Amino acid sequence: MAKILVLHGPNLNLLGTREPEVYGRETLADIDASLMSMAQEKGSTVKTYQSNHEGNLIDLIQEAMAWAEGILINPGAFTHYSYALRDAIAASGLPCIEVHISNIHSREAFRQKSVIAAVCVGAITGFGWKSYILGLQALLDYLEADDRS
Amino acid sequence: MAKILVLHGPNLNLLGTREPEVYGRETLADIDASLMSMAQEKGSTVKTYQSNHEGNLIDLIQEAMAWAEGILINPGAFTHYSYALRDAIAASGLPCIEVHISNIHSREAFRQKSVIAAVCVGAITGFGWKSYILGLQALLDYLEADDRS
Amino acid sequence: MAKILVLHGPNLNLLGTREPEVYGRETLADIDASLMSMAQEKGSTVKTYQSNHEGNLIDLIQEAMAWAEGILINPGAFTHYSYALRDAIAASGLPCIEVHISNIHSREAFRQKSVIAAVCVGAITGFGWKSYILGLQALLDYLEADDRS
Amino acid sequence: MAKILVLHGPNLNLLGTREPEVYGRETLADIDASLMSMAQEKGSTVKTYQSNHEGNLIDLIQEAMAWAEGILINPGAFTHYSYALRDAIAASGLPCIEVHISNIHSREAFRQKSVIAAVCVGAITGFGWKSYILGLQALLDYLEADDRS
Amino acid sequence: MAKILVLHGPNLNLLGTREPEVYGRETLADIDASLMSMAQEKGSTVKTYQSNHEGNLIDLIQEAMAWAEGILINPGAFTHYSYALRDAIAASGLPCIEVHISNIHSREAFRQKSVIAAVCVGAITGFGWKSYILGLQALLDYLEADDRS
Amino acid sequence: MAKILVLHGPNLNLLGTREPEVYGRETLADIDASLMSMAQEKGSTVKTYQSNHEGNLIDLIQEAMAWAEGILINPGAFTHYSYALRDAIAASGLPCIEVHISNIHSREAFRQKSVIAAVCVGAITGFGWKSYILGLQALLDYLEADDRS
Amino acid sequence: MAKILVLHGPNLNLLGTREPEVYGRETLADIDASLMSMAQEKGSTVKTYQSNHEGNLIDLIQEAMAWAEGILINPGAFTHYSYALRDAIAASGLPCIEVHISNIHSREAFRQKSVIAAVCVGAITGFGWKSYILGLQALLDYLEADDRS
Amino acid sequence: MAKILVLHGPNLNLLGTREPEVYGRETLADIDASLMSMAQEKGSTVKTYQSNHEGNLIDLIQEAMAWAEGILINPGAFTHYSYALRDAIAASGLPCIEVHISNIHSREAFRQKSVIAAVCVGAITGFGWKSYILGLQALLDYLEADDRS
Amino acid sequence: MAKILVLHGPNLNLLGTREPEVYGRETLADIDASLMSMAQEKGSTVKTYQSNHEGNLIDLIQEAMAWAEGILINPGAFTHYSYALRDAIAASGLPCIEVHISNIHSREAFRQKSVIAAVCVGAITGFGWKSYILGLQALLDYLEADDRS
Amino acid sequence: MAKILVLHGPNLNLLGTREPEVYGRETLADIDASLMSMAQEKGSTVKTYQSNHEGNLIDLIQEAMAWAEGILINPGAFTHYSYALRDAIAASGLPCIEVHISNIHSREAFRQKSVIAAVCVGAITGFGWKSYILGLQALLDYLEADDRS
Amino acid sequence: MAKILVLHGPNLNLLGTREPEVYGRETLADIDASLMSMAQEKGSTVKTYQSNHEGNLIDLIQEAMAWAEGILINPGAFTHYSYALRDAIAASGLPCIEVHISNIHSREAFRQKSVIAAVCVGAITGFGWKSYILGLQALLDYLEADDRS
Amino acid sequence: MAKILVLHGPNLNLLGTREPEVYGRETLADIDASLMSMAQEKGSTVKTYQSNHEGNLIDLIQEAMAWAEGILINPGAFTHYSYALRDAIAASGLPCIEVHISNIHSREAFRQKSVIAAVCVGAITGFGWKSYILGLQALLDYLEADDRS
Repeated sequence: MAKILVLHGPNLNLLGTREPEVYGRETLADIDASLMSMAQEKGSTVKTYQSNHEGNLIDLIQEAMAWAEGILINPGAFTHYSYALRDAIAASGLPCIEVHISNIHSREAFRQKSVIAAVCVGAITGFGWKSYILGLQALLDYLEADDRS
Repeated sequence: MAKILVLHGPNLNLLGTREPEVYGRETLADIDASLMSMAQEKGSTVKTYQSNHEGNLIDLIQEAMAWAEGILINPGAFTHYSYALRDAIAASGLPCIEVHISNIHSREAFRQKSVIAAVCVGAITGFGWKSYILGLQALLDYLEADDRS
Repeated sequence: MAKILVLHGPNLNLLGTREPEVYGRETLADIDASLMSMAQEKGSTVKTYQSNHEGNLIDLIQEAMAWAEGILINPGAFTHYSYALRDAIAASGLPCIEVHISNIHSREAFRQKSVIAAVCVGAITGFGWKSYILGLQALLDYLEADDRS
Repeated sequence: MAKILVLHGPNLNLLGTREPEVYGRETLADIDASLMSMAQEKGSTVKTYQSNHEGNLIDLIQEAMAWAEGILINPGAFTHYSYALRDAIAASGLPCIEVHISNIHSREAFRQKSVIAAVCVGAITGFGWKSYILGLQALLDYLEADDRS
Repeated sequence: MAKILVLHGPNLNLLGTREPEVYGRETLADIDASLMSMAQEKGSTVKTYQSNHEGNLIDLIQEAMAWAEGILINPGAFTHYSYALRDAIAASGLPCIEVHISNIHSREAFRQKSVIAAVCVGAITGFGWKSYILGLQALLDYLEADDRS
Repeated sequence: MAKILVLHGPNLNLLGTREPEVYGRETLADIDASLMSMAQEKGSTVKTYQSNHEGNLIDLIQEAMAWAEGILINPGAFTHYSYALRDAIAASGLPCIEVHISNIHSREAFRQKSVIAAVCVGAITGFGWKSYILGLQALLDYLEADDRS
Repeated sequence: MAKILVLHGPNLNLLGTREPEVYGRETLADIDASLMSMAQEKGSTVKTYQSNHEGNLIDLIQEAMAWAEGILINPGAFTHYSYALRDAIAASGLPCIEVHISNIHSREAFRQKSVIAAVCVGAITGFGWKSYILGLQALLDYLEADDRS
Repeated sequence: MAKILVLHGPNLNLLGTREPEVYGRETLADIDASLMSMAQEKGSTVKTYQSNHEGNLIDLIQEAMAWAEGILINPGAFTHYSYALRDAIAASGLPCIEVHISNIHSREAFRQKSVIAAVCVGAITGFGWKSYILGLQALLDYLEADDRS
Repeated sequence: MAKILVLHGPNLNLLGTREPEVYGRETLADIDASLMSMAQEKGSTVKTYQSNHEGNLIDLIQEAMAWAEGILINPGAFTHYSYALRDAIAASGLPCIEVHISNIHSREAFRQKSVIAAVCVGAITGFGWKSYILGLQALLDYLEADDRS
Repeated sequence: MAKILVLHGPNLNLLGTREPEVYGRETLADIDASLMSMAQEKGSTVKTYQSNHEGNLIDLIQEAMAWAEGILINPGAFTHYSYALRDAIAASGLPCIEVHISNIHSREAFRQKSVIAAVCVGAITGFGWKSYILGLQALLDYLEADDRS
Repeated sequence: MAKILVLHGPNLNLLGTREPEVYGRETLADIDASLMSMAQEKGSTVKTYQSNHEGNLIDLIQEAMAWAEGILINPGAFTHYSYALRDAIAASGLPCIEVHISNIHSREAFRQKSVIAAVCVGAITGFGWKSYILGLQALLDYLEADDRS
Repeated sequence: MAKILVLHGPNLNLLGTREPEVYGRETLADIDASLMSMAQEKGSTVKTYQSNHEGNLIDLIQEAMAWAEGILINPGAFTHYSYALRDAIAASGLPCIEVHISNIHSREAFRQKSVIAAVCVGAITGFGWKSYILGLQALLDYLEADDRS
């Protein structure tokens, strides 16, 4: 039974409340509920957190070293400059998957670079709230494969 | 009666206490008092906050979506790298004006770029503590014009 | 019943035969079989092709305009310079998802940029052969959501 | 009683005649009238000029050394390359304030840089024709403060 | 009957008098005569001007807003830095075609970039004085097509 | 009687079938017919080819060394990276003219650079399908002038 | 008796618990104890803090203006982007020394640049936990020299 | 008895037929004959191919995995952008030596970079057709040394 | 008897009137007098002009083709961007020497580059008003040497 | 008993004789004496050399392979370009520590980069002549730790 | 009978004594002996020198103008910055061939550029000590071909 | 009576012996003789040195601190990278003038930058051997002016 930390970066608490044509109508609560229900089906558990504070996200990753087996993170704007978040993920030793709601590769130049990517197993970008679902599936598969080997 | 959120970024709480020849003798309390008095004269209200924490500033912007009609911000050093602050301003949907005490355009290269500018109505830089006064005037004018149209 | 074109770019025919510790032991035939079986389960069909010729991939995309509803592509090395492939995807009008076996974001600089990304719905990178499975799922979900709207 | 030179750079004579949704409906004559009326109220005078010729603007700045106490300039497209204009402002020894009708910081890259900024007291950008009004106020305040010190 | 403004930028008055192996033997007067004769044949008129002064060219473009239907311009060296000329063309709202006698794309790096291009319908480069003839034809065709639609 | 090779690069076979507001309604067959008819009028012949394969275009250029007197090419996306095509044009020794349907100079940065330009006589960009007509005229003029000298 | 503020940036609380071959076996508590004992020997005192929150580090620096005579800081990942931390150090007016456990100069490009360096007296990098010991010695020497002069 | 694949990239079939002062008078057939005769002397065999098609060269490298012990390649213009060719060489696991007829290091900037170099044992550039002879000798030496170890 | 055109670029008419510690106390009239007297001694004549208008300087260079044998120019701020001035010098066919009062090589980056240099015989920078004297001597020597050869 | 080579790069023989406010009053002889006395206290020996010749420094490093256990180097201006010095340090296999009298990180851009850093254990910068003392201590600690392990 | 100068740049005297898995076991003496024996076989002579001093290598090249017919050089680290060495080779007028033991093209970025290449006939890189043998053969061939022509 | 050190950098001893059409026919001895004779006339003395060794030039500058009042230097290729030479000039405190025989500003990009310029009074480039004569005159004038002030 895999235990997963799900982290939502800055401003993602506004999901579903503004610009639905870009970010969809699902709220963060909806997404968290979907992830929990999917985890339950697969005999796993997720704990979800959102914070606008880089330091909180780092604290949560460090605490997760004691209980979690994997991390699913949408770093929001921290994607582009938080080397501290990157170091936290690397130091945790936990497999981490990066998800983005919209396709960061097609955005303005400064938005295309992820300083987090190099310390993640993989990335899923562009599928709206379903990026999270695909990401959780990818993480559970990864942990299962790891278990067997 | 316009309601305005005034935000002061990191280290601006030290204003007036150090290097007066560069940053002037007005303390942040002086500036806040001037803004409040000016707002009162114009039948408006301002709430002012200072924080050294990027996350706090973002929280305040998000909370302001429930009560404020505009934002006046001196992002301090966050001007140059806080894409999270930028996203918060954009997501809030509130008109925002960026002010700087000294002329950032004439500083060392890395200081010239504002990652906040693209999501603001306009910017006022270089007039000492009066940048705030001009900024509040510009914001009130903007809101009034918006009202009439 | 969705019809999907699956394209494998240059050198991907060698998958599973060399450097299994990096690229896994699944051959392209194995992957194609998995995709077909998954498609069948979901009442869809996939046609799969591999080519080392940029022109062939473009021809296949153009022909797919007559029969396919979506494209799943691992552009291989073309990811980094084939603007012709990019134009073909854009001109086809078909939703396209880009997959990569390893995490291109963590590779040497020149490998990080995808000239294809801007014309794709989204991207899935870093999950070995399962990037394809996640990609197909994402594409079928996308088409279904599109259908309903 | 402060004497101010107001300079409008190339193409600004077209203000109010084209693309009102971007540049507003105020003509340059309207703006000049507003500035004059505001100056009169404050016991000051302004002289205003527009030119499409870089050399004319430089000549006007040099002549102003004999009569003016400050300069308010909207350099238009010269903002981005006229080092000669910059040198004229610097050589005049007069305090200068740069104004822009739209927010140059949010424009395409080459338009963001101002080669004039480093020789100006400050800048006001993004407030339509009111950028001029705010700029004149800022300049008069600056001169008054200077006087007292 | 289309009315066309033809503008020749700095130093083009020397055409035909120096370096004929590079710039050909046709003088500017010859070219203007050819353009006039061609215009006459097609029931159109051209007015031609040459100036070494950026401001004059801008003035001419602004005046043309009152009488001309299109602009044919060889911006000469202004191609590479005159954002003021670019703004004038954009503000005029007139369709503009950029011509060059030699192939600017094959010149030294700084000469390859045209800051004018983005506000022009198209460009014709490399055909000696015939670039003008082709340009006039392209402009007349463009105006005619526009008329019909 | 001049013999001309006309080459259309990748995806240009789709011309006229998609996005007519950008690329017009003329199909490649229409354009080829126009070029042939124009050539016939002028006592010349054109052979036209389209290919999505860089290698095919190079083969055609090499074969044209045996029969053609000039090349008219719309390199499509190869414009931006095919140094092999560039070498083929240079090695052929044939005068070559580059045409583009839309104005590549006004596109996103990576699209502005042509690696082909330096080996061409000149370029014509931005006039829709008429870029080909102007290009053929320019090439025939060039060959005629060359003949006489 | 010098009073020193010692600051450890993000993720440094994990020191000694992971990757000992890179970062050594000393925990942060060990390092703090060594610094305290060394300070005591030299008749000085140190107060040590670790935080994953940029804002906390800035608050601590501002508070130190009331009691400390110098700062010893290992900014961790903030080294590379926290201009706010940089401003706090500069505004405090306290002499500051930057230490790093591993040699940042030999790391990947983005890690080599320190935005903090320009506001520090000096830097000590690459000596494992002894970087702190050398840094404290350097700071005490600096304060003593300053005292005498 | 070593078996060697010799590959000639785009436009190299024209060798000896054009610009002999730059590329020499030897045709590709002459070079192939020299390589074959040299191979025979040393008890080895070479198979030689030329193609203007990137895909063909990749196919040939993949097929060579079944029979060849080394590759000698002059990638022509593909040197500068074909990451697909690079991947094919790397994936083949065969030792590869890169040769160039002229000194690419002394050419225009874009021509100096070889994206192939990093996956080759070594490179020989600048010796006309003798670059091939030196390259074959180097490859045979390399294989012999490898055999002995 | 050599005839020399001396040109002073924008803002140089202010020489000697401001910042004497940087630019010296000699006025432009003083410098012109020195040049004339020196020319007279050497049996030559100079005509001197100053203009803040790029177009005027170009006109003067073109007119000088009819009477002058050489040009001595201090292009002032035009040094850094006036490609039109550069083209005028090149087109004139006259030997030109570039002088600067202060050492442009030691200025801020954008000021170090001269776009004029490539079309000049040589440059003299950093010697105050004596740069002109050295420049005139260099030009007269150059013309004399040219005469003899 | 550790034997240490101390190297002073170009112009460091002038230390203490010029600009004492920047570089202090200690001469190189003073510094060498301090290092020798410190070494003696710790039962070690140092040999010190200064040279303005890159080649001499390399020769000294190569000779030190026969007798020294560590290197302390202030490379002076060679810091920024001497890849030969870097190679000598790397090839020597000796642990090396880089010291600088002033803080190179806060200098002009070109001065910030050290091409030596990547082959050194660590670096100490900004503490005047005490950088050497701290460096020697760090080196002796390093050698002792190495001995014990 | 060709006379050849062989030059080994800085640190190459250490060849064969350190890191044999990278640089091989051959010492510089071994390589020199091989070159001499090969030269003797071919009726030529070589003189070999190694120096860590850029100036010495330049002196040797200048002296060689009096006796040598060609130069074989492994510039070592000078490859990357010694424009003085480059000028010496160019000024000597002697054909020069550049050799490298390992493949500089696959090294870290700063190592890939050779400032020497543009003044050499060609380059041979990546074949261990045999790069010298291949280089000598290439040089003798070159001189012989030159003789015959 | 001013005492001047004249330094000629690497390869300048070859002046007058090669490529006279570029570098003229004057040998270094001729130039030295001219400088000495000119110095004598003006009651001054010059000592001249040439070296291919960067270290020698630095030694000579340091020794000149004891006897010379100014330096005239043609740094040759060291112009472009010798920060050590730059530091020596700066440390000497002597006024230094940089001369170049040909116009470095019009050379290939890497040759345009002088790392020496920022520490020199001024520069004279492009006048063949007369650059030295003009340079000596400029230096003597400079010293005389300095004397009087």
